[in-house]
Amino acid sequence: MEEKRVLTEQLLDASLKSTVPQTDLIIESMRYSLLAGGKRVRPMLCFAATEMFGGSLDAAKPAAVALEMIHTMSLIHDDLPAMDNDDLRRGKPTNHVLYGDDVAILAGDAMLSESFAHVARETRGVPAERVVRVLGILGDSVGALGLAGGQVLDLKSEGQPNVGMDTLQWIHTYKTAALLKAAVCCGAVLAGASEEDIARCETYALKIGLAFQVADDILDVESSSAELGKTAGKDEAIARELVDDAKAALAPYGERAAPLLGLADYIIARKS
Amino acid sequence: MEEKRVLTEQLLDASLKSTVPQTDLIIESMRYSLLAGGKRVRPMLCFAATEMFGGSLDAAKPAAVALEMIHTMSLIHDDLPAMDNDDLRRGKPTNHVLYGDDVAILAGDAMLSESFAHVARETRGVPAERVVRVLGILGDSVGALGLAGGQVLDLKSEGQPNVGMDTLQWIHTYKTAALLKAAVCCGAVLAGASEEDIARCETYALKIGLAFQVADDILDVESSSAELGKTAGKDEAIARELVDDAKAALAPYGERAAPLLGLADYIIARKS
Repeated sequence: MEEKRVLTEQLLDASLKSTVPQTDLIIESMRYSLLAGGKRVRPMLCFAATEMFGGSLDAAKPAAVALEMIHTMSLIHDDLPAMDNDDLRRGKPTNHVLYGDDVAILAGDAMLSESFAHVARETRGVPAERVVRVLGILGDSVGALGLAGGQVLDLKSEGQPNVGMDTLQWIHTYKTAALLKAAVCCGAVLAGASEEDIARCETYALKIGLAFQVADDILDVESSSAELGKTAGKDEAIARELVDDAKAALAPYGERAAPLLGLADYIIARKS
Repeated sequence: MEEKRVLTEQLLDASLKSTVPQTDLIIESMRYSLLAGGKRVRPMLCFAATEMFGGSLDAAKPAAVALEMIHTMSLIHDDLPAMDNDDLRRGKPTNHVLYGDDVAILAGDAMLSESFAHVARETRGVPAERVVRVLGILGDSVGALGLAGGQVLDLKSEGQPNVGMDTLQWIHTYKTAALLKAAVCCGAVLAGASEEDIARCETYALKIGLAFQVADDILDVESSSAELGKTAGKDEAIARELVDDAKAALAPYGERAAPLLGLADYIIARKS
C-alpha cells in the first residue's frame, strides 16, 4: 500500500508542470494543493480495482491522477470563504489564503478540466471505448448527482431544524461516496471488467463511502464531548457493519480482493 | 445560421434536467445560466466545422452542447464577487446574485464536469478514438493553457503599469481564442479531418478569437469616449485584417467553408 502511495506522489508531481512563464502562477497554486499530502485513497482504490481484474497498473495511472485532481479541486473550492471558509487544511494555509479567492477558483477550474485532459491524453494500452467510459464516470462523479450536488444539498441543509436520515444519506452518498465509487469503477473498467463486476464494485464503494462518513462523524462526536462516548460506540458498530457489507460484495474474487479489503479497513481507521 | 441557433437552444434545454428532488436547486441554477440566451457562437462553429469536413450534425451535437456549457461555466465564475463582481449579465441578475456565491461556484463546477460526461455518454456514430480526442481538446481549452490560465494572467495584469502587447495577446489567445479553437477543432475531429485540416482550423480560430477581442475593445473605446474615434478606426482595420487572415486559412475548402466564413464576419459584427 505504501508503495502505491509513493508511486502516486511521483505521478502527481509529474502531471503538472508550467511550460511557459505565463502559467507559472496558476500552476504553482494548482501544485500547492495537489502536492499537499493526504492518504491518496482514491488513486489507491483505482489501482487496487484494476489489479483485481488483471488490468495493467500503467493503463490506470492517468485515471488515478485524475481522481486525485478532482478530489483536490473539491477541497480548494470547499475551503473558499463563500463555502466553508477554512483557513487551514492539514496544518497549512488553504489555497485562497495564499493565492487569493480569484486564483483559487480558477486553479480549481483548471484542475478539474486538466483531470479529463490528462486521462484523454495519457491513457495507453486499452481500447478507446474504455477511456470514453472512464471519462463519463469521472464527469458524473462531480456533477449534480456527484460532489457538487451533494455539497449544494449539504450547504442548504445546514442550520435546518429537521434534516431527515434520508437527506443525510443522500448527501454522504454524493458528497463522499460518488468519487470513491468512480475510483473503483474506473480501475475496473480499464481492466475490462464485466457489468456484473462493475456492479459489485459500486456496492463496495458506496458502503465504504458511507462507512467513511460515519467514521468522520465519530471523530466529531469524540472531539466535541467525552460524554457522547455511547453514541460513538454505536456509530462505530455501524461503520464496522458497513465495511463488512463492502467486503462481502467482493467475496467472489477471493484472494484477488485483498488490496480492496485492506483499503476498506484503512478508510474507517484513517482518521484516528 | 438561425436554424442552427434554434437547434442549439433545443439541445441545451434537453441536456440538463433534474431527475430527483435533491438536485432541483443545483440544476435550476445551472439551467438559469445555460439558457440565458446568447449568440451560441461556439456550438455554431463546431457544427460548421463538422459539416465542412462532411461529418454528421448528430455526432457533433453533444460536443456543441459541451462547448456552451464550458462557456457558461466561465461566465458564472467570472461574474463572482471574488472575480469581476458583476451583478448583471444581458440585463438579468447574475447566477450568484440569485443563488448565492456558494451555489454559483458549485453550479459552475457541475456544469464543467457535466460537459465532459455529456460528450462521453451521448456521442454516437463516430470511432471512440475521436471522442477521446475531443474530450482532450475540451479539457485543454479550460486549463492553464486555456480559459483559466488566460483569466489568471488577466486578473494579475489589471492595474499594472506596463503590460506589454505580448502579454495582452497571450491573455486574449487563452481567455477567448482557446475555446473558439476547441469549438472548430472538435467539429473537425469528429468528422475525421486530417492533421493538416485541423491545423488550418486552428489558424482560423485563433485569428477570429483575436479579431473578436479587438472588436470588443473597439466597443469599449466607442462607449467610453467619442474623441477616441481614430483609435477605433485603426482597431477596426486590425480586426478586419485578422478576419481576412482567418478566411484565407480556409481557402482550400472553397464553397464548403462558407458557413465558417460567415461566422467570422458575424463574430466581429456581433457586438454592434
